Amino acid sequence: MAGRKKRAGNPSPGPSGGPGAPSPTLLVRGGWILSMAPGGFQGHGDILVREGRIQEIGPDLPRPPGASLLDASGAAVLPGLVQAHLHLCQTLFRGLAEEMELLPWLQTRILPLEAAHDEKSIAASARLALTELLLSGTTAVQTMETVHHTQVVLEVLEEAGVTAVTGGCLIDQGEGTPPSMILPAGRALEAQLSLAREWNGKRSGRVEAALCPRFALSCSEGLLRECAAASREKGLRLHTHAAENKEEIRKVREITGLSDIAFLDGAGILGPATSLAHCVHVSPEDRARLRDRGVHVVTCPSANLKLASGIAPAAEYLDQGINLALGADGAPCNNRLDPWRETRLLSLLQKVLAGPAALPPGKALETATLGGARALGREKEIGALEKGKRADMVVVDLEAPWLGPGGSPETRLVFAAGPAEVRHLVLGGKTVVRDGKFLLWDPAEAAARAREELKKLLSRAKLPS
Amino acid sequence: MAGRKKRAGNPSPGPSGGPGAPSPTLLVRGGWILSMAPGGFQGHGDILVREGRIQEIGPDLPRPPGASLLDASGAAVLPGLVQAHLHLCQTLFRGLAEEMELLPWLQTRILPLEAAHDEKSIAASARLALTELLLSGTTAVQTMETVHHTQVVLEVLEEAGVTAVTGGCLIDQGEGTPPSMILPAGRALEAQLSLAREWNGKRSGRVEAALCPRFALSCSEGLLRECAAASREKGLRLHTHAAENKEEIRKVREITGLSDIAFLDGAGILGPATSLAHCVHVSPEDRARLRDRGVHVVTCPSANLKLASGIAPAAEYLDQGINLALGADGAPCNNRLDPWRETRLLSLLQKVLAGPAALPPGKALETATLGGARALGREKEIGALEKGKRADMVVVDLEAPWLGPGGSPETRLVFAAGPAEVRHLVLGGKTVVRDGKFLLWDPAEAAARAREELKKLLSRAKLPS
Repeated sequence: MAGRKKRAGNPSPGPSGGPGAPSPTLLVRGGWILSMAPGGFQGHGDILVREGRIQEIGPDLPRPPGASLLDASGAAVLPGLVQAHLHLCQTLFRGLAEEMELLPWLQTRILPLEAAHDEKSIAASARLALTELLLSGTTAVQTMETVHHTQVVLEVLEEAGVTAVTGGCLIDQGEGTPPSMILPAGRALEAQLSLAREWNGKRSGRVEAALCPRFALSCSEGLLRECAAASREKGLRLHTHAAENKEEIRKVREITGLSDIAFLDGAGILGPATSLAHCVHVSPEDRARLRDRGVHVVTCPSANLKLASGIAPAAEYLDQGINLALGADGAPCNNRLDPWRETRLLSLLQKVLAGPAALPPGKALETATLGGARALGREKEIGALEKGKRADMVVVDLEAPWLGPGGSPETRLVFAAGPAEVRHLVLGGKTVVRDGKFLLWDPAEAAARAREELKKLLSRAKLPS
Repeated sequence: MAGRKKRAGNPSPGPSGGPGAPSPTLLVRGGWILSMAPGGFQGHGDILVREGRIQEIGPDLPRPPGASLLDASGAAVLPGLVQAHLHLCQTLFRGLAEEMELLPWLQTRILPLEAAHDEKSIAASARLALTELLLSGTTAVQTMETVHHTQVVLEVLEEAGVTAVTGGCLIDQGEGTPPSMILPAGRALEAQLSLAREWNGKRSGRVEAALCPRFALSCSEGLLRECAAASREKGLRLHTHAAENKEEIRKVREITGLSDIAFLDGAGILGPATSLAHCVHVSPEDRARLRDRGVHVVTCPSANLKLASGIAPAAEYLDQGINLALGADGAPCNNRLDPWRETRLLSLLQKVLAGPAALPPGKALETATLGGARALGREKEIGALEKGKRADMVVVDLEAPWLGPGGSPETRLVFAAGPAEVRHLVLGGKTVVRDGKFLLWDPAEAAARAREELKKLLSRAKLPS
């Protein structure tokens, strides 16, 4: 590749058509395929996609008549990246909550900003997030939204075509929480169950409502127990924060007499349908609990540094057999939603904790793909490139001057690549990014709408920018 | 800005002409100027450049007849970034020395690879490095090269037009060092002094030879003393590595009975002309030594994580009044030469060591500009945008969808921006990057040459790729 790629701003409909068009046959040709499937294809080859699913992977596949073509020469082809802990509704607050630890950050900025959302501002926030997520190679997300207007986020996720497990957060108590965000346990739960009835298994089937109790300090034990029971009875995913910050953990212990992991466990929250974001400070006893319950840990390296929380022992979790996934968390504690920054940082930070060979590039990529798919409960559909799976793929340049001249594809991807190297993105067989160009909507328009909605939101919140 | 920028690969001569052409008058218009000068201009404005120097900074400057124009609307204008610890000769080895701590990394990979360099491979390595450095906004470097062929690196630096302090490294002993790299102290020193005679104050005056004893383990006390004396007598900069890795420090203590900082100090190496890369593990007593001697500390956050060395207490160095600069180190321990990854990581990591307000964006940017200029001894010429200073400037998009919608320019730059947001780069009044397009040479050709030379180098080194 010569220099950098063209990055045109105005979307034009690709040969795959808009998000509503039927998926054509597609041949992704001549890339270095990293299937990420255990024992799966790895090497130079092509991928044939029909009806949104992978039909064949291998070298020199013939191009069926009428199939559109994506050039992957000089590039890696890997499963779309999965981010298993995000807050799309917070994208609008990027850069507005700096230099604070978790609790004051939440109480003085994030919760009041979330409380000021309306349907328009939350839609603008989710669309801005998805612009960044898709352009940087993310095709599946697990997100926690705010108390109100979650329906709008589900609609934007459906429109974008990503796979998503999401829900409004559940809060029935908590110091520093705006009163409008606190609902009695029953009402809080019912709002989310109603989303699940409306969305789960409906429409495209890709967007699913989950139960997201915010964190131990904002939920009564009763609410947590009801969430756990509803999750078991109705097969709903559970997604919460845990063991992020020392002061948070101290307060949970002061109130409950337990570590927050033990408190969540006592309320029945921990199980194989549960994703716990962060898990920075976890005792050996609680680590055994995470493993025994089959919980998914979602590590958020940038956010844990930014809020001065610490470094999660991610390599140890993997060694213990705990499934590990990755997420950028919210824009106000990152300040990007870029899976490449997180994957690189995940690997680099573990080396200081566990030695220079800890969490090598292949493992980091597995965390960012298959590990995430498992956390979403969707590993049979996504997270690896295999015959029959959904054709969610990202094609990433390997030959940009700043990635080589030598080194394995995995090393180039994890330690050197970034969003600028994402050449194409395919979502269920549809090309959504082609040659770095976003085909779903106009990124500049998404940014302009976000600016407008932020202005109105800040005036509603009575907060400075 | 709509979406991402155009990144065309083929260079075309810009209106500023090639590197040899005279610098025209240039108006950089309508950006958010971060001068980085204490008390300097900060706000919306223009910068007028004549004869390669800044003539005026302020709002609404008139465009002189014949002046060329650079559009900085929606962008920040800041001094070109300074990287004060790099190894350009190692760029060819990117991705070829993974998963090792410092000493085995040096002994089994880096030193044998360096020993295999010839003039062509080292030129290709330096050109590849400069392609990445300039495209990502770096306009001044302090680098340590290998024992041989340093003249070639100086020539590439002169051709590129950057400000540079550089030198071949001095080695007169050391376990695991290829014999061809070990020279008797006198000969090692003479080779570098001869470069200084040929380059310092000559040609453009921008490229300067320094004395670079490799590190305590590869230098006899005699060689260090001779370096220190020559530096004092001839006014040469000194640049070495120190206190990077615990095993390195243990070995220095075993041999000398001292910490390596104390050992370097005893040999007279520490002073205001000296830059010490890393300083990860430094006792309170040695920190006081660094401060008292006026040494410049160059922190390399990615490299310190990658080689599992640790996290340098950078915020503490700043609090103590030690000048702090930043560097990406070599491509094999990073794997990028990107100042944005380093600036972000510098700030994020310090928050875990010293709290969420530690090393805020403004301080991180100062480290990456003025701090670096001081480490090069060039703070009167570069590192800030002020009348009379060299017009080394970078224009960075602030309105890409993934940087906003809110937040200060500093926060956007440090926590969210990257090389993809670099719109223009001006070097001594010459536009070297325009709209993301590299105008000095063809990046694809630099990459192709690097691939070719790496193949030959690996065969000379008898090492696998």
